[in-house]
Amino acid sequence: MGGDGGVNVTVPAAVQSVQKIVDLHLHLVGDEAKILPLLSQLGATQMTDRITVLHTSQRVCANDKPTNILRKGKTSSMFLAVELVKSGQVQAMVSAGDTGALLLSGRHLLKTIAGIDKPAIVATIPAASRQSFLLDVGANVDCKADQLFQFAVMGTVLAESLNLVAKARVGLLNIGVENYKGTEQVKLAAELLEGCDQIEYIGYIEGNDLYEGMADVVVCDGFVGNVTIKSSAGVASKVNRLLLEQTEGGLSNRFKGFFVRPLLAQLRTQINPSRFNGPSLLGLQGSIVKSHGNANIEGFFYAIQQAVNEVENSVPELITDRVATIMGAGN
Amino acid sequence: MGGDGGVNVTVPAAVQSVQKIVDLHLHLVGDEAKILPLLSQLGATQMTDRITVLHTSQRVCANDKPTNILRKGKTSSMFLAVELVKSGQVQAMVSAGDTGALLLSGRHLLKTIAGIDKPAIVATIPAASRQSFLLDVGANVDCKADQLFQFAVMGTVLAESLNLVAKARVGLLNIGVENYKGTEQVKLAAELLEGCDQIEYIGYIEGNDLYEGMADVVVCDGFVGNVTIKSSAGVASKVNRLLLEQTEGGLSNRFKGFFVRPLLAQLRTQINPSRFNGPSLLGLQGSIVKSHGNANIEGFFYAIQQAVNEVENSVPELITDRVATIMGAGN
Repeated sequence: MGGDGGVNVTVPAAVQSVQKIVDLHLHLVGDEAKILPLLSQLGATQMTDRITVLHTSQRVCANDKPTNILRKGKTSSMFLAVELVKSGQVQAMVSAGDTGALLLSGRHLLKTIAGIDKPAIVATIPAASRQSFLLDVGANVDCKADQLFQFAVMGTVLAESLNLVAKARVGLLNIGVENYKGTEQVKLAAELLEGCDQIEYIGYIEGNDLYEGMADVVVCDGFVGNVTIKSSAGVASKVNRLLLEQTEGGLSNRFKGFFVRPLLAQLRTQINPSRFNGPSLLGLQGSIVKSHGNANIEGFFYAIQQAVNEVENSVPELITDRVATIMGAGN
Repeated sequence: MGGDGGVNVTVPAAVQSVQKIVDLHLHLVGDEAKILPLLSQLGATQMTDRITVLHTSQRVCANDKPTNILRKGKTSSMFLAVELVKSGQVQAMVSAGDTGALLLSGRHLLKTIAGIDKPAIVATIPAASRQSFLLDVGANVDCKADQLFQFAVMGTVLAESLNLVAKARVGLLNIGVENYKGTEQVKLAAELLEGCDQIEYIGYIEGNDLYEGMADVVVCDGFVGNVTIKSSAGVASKVNRLLLEQTEGGLSNRFKGFFVRPLLAQLRTQINPSRFNGPSLLGLQGSIVKSHGNANIEGFFYAIQQAVNEVENSVPELITDRVATIMGAGN
């Protein structure tokens, strides 16, 4: 039910997903008065073996303070969907709803993995040759060095399992590469990472190198990560708008547009945020993927795909194992 | 002497500046063995009434720890140039050298304005219709609410004098617009700004709205600002590279290039970092402009232009007055 587009985005994306992803079974949790007509319209009423609707008329509202969720939101679609993960009826949950509410429901119902203080939101970013992962992008505004270290461990597991790299290179986001630069927390986290032989720590990464593919995992606190990812998206939108303006207008511009449009299309597949939708909540005993609130159908499809990838790669279990190993090794 | 290009960037930019900016007199502080041949090569040896060379063979090295500057760097070109500001021989100083060294020299020689704890680095960012200002972008990694408030005052003066707006709209960079979001410092700064009737505070600004022109001044701590500005530049470079790749290659691509190149040129003038080079150190009793280390000739020219604008608009004096007024008003 969540996100700017609501069921008009999530239901078509769900139908596309079961069509494209073999053996996927989806539970749609929300208002069946809105969901069923859409399924029928999309010709998906015969898919009852692949799509199950779980009805509730309650939903988390964007204006709710997150703390209200636990008091009166327990019949909301978001809360019920997280309960499905907890009970084991589903293996992962995807939502375009409020991040704070999702974090709170996730922590309350699923609990964090042993050794992880708080979950982090990880975003996938388009780097040079393959995707890389940035975390935290909004769950924790202030982070101690221990937490930054935990983010590095979780990001390593994600990158190694989803990107199929043997050793994920981990960087700390900082304002320079010199070792005297940065906040105390970042400097302390650097020491922790240097002392851990189970993590391939490569040092500080500056903002301008974020998209150069120097690291598979980039770690920062949730305030910095959130502003970084959103301002990057802001630049990408501005460029998209400038390109679009160029392809509109008078005859000569239309002529140009004929040549420019394919370029635009290619550019969009490379910097299009839709392709990289689906930040995950890492560190919980279960998989929760958070779609951007303003995701379109394509974007929400990628968020579902991300959830499938995490389940097929047993990401939460691998994190649990890795944290236990590292702690056992005395780090 | 500073920056990646050294005198090969700064000297041609200096010559361009005296050609384009009426009544500008420049002092070039550095190694005359490198500067004089370049001036001669550029046909600028007759400009002795507009360009003065102050010789020193010493320079701040990129690997120096900033604290070394004050111990053994007092004959460096950077230090001597700041001394010219202090003695009143020049009205502003421009450098492409190390930011930390520049900050330290500036604070040591010029002192901060009464009521300002520490200087901030302000960056000019391309917004919708006119430039807006982001500060701090790297001088202070941790900031108390008081400092964020001081940044708001300084940014207001800069925007109102350089942009000719009657009331500069000030926003605080945050991870959401809801008032319960953000760090304690940001929330406290919001209270201070709401309580000050001399500042047009408009609330929280998210990263994706940074380039939409919603605010004339956006305030954040130096860690967040530095990563934001650099990651935005990273996206812009990535887009530039993608566009350039499109215009190279086979015959059909070359044909496309014919149409795409003008588009690229236009795009570059709009998102080209060169046009927005010249972050200033605000809060000192004197004008210091910091050019990016990797600025080209065009970029360094804009940094000089920025210094001229600040002098012509008496920015440090206006900040002094405004801080005194606000403090007198009990804020």
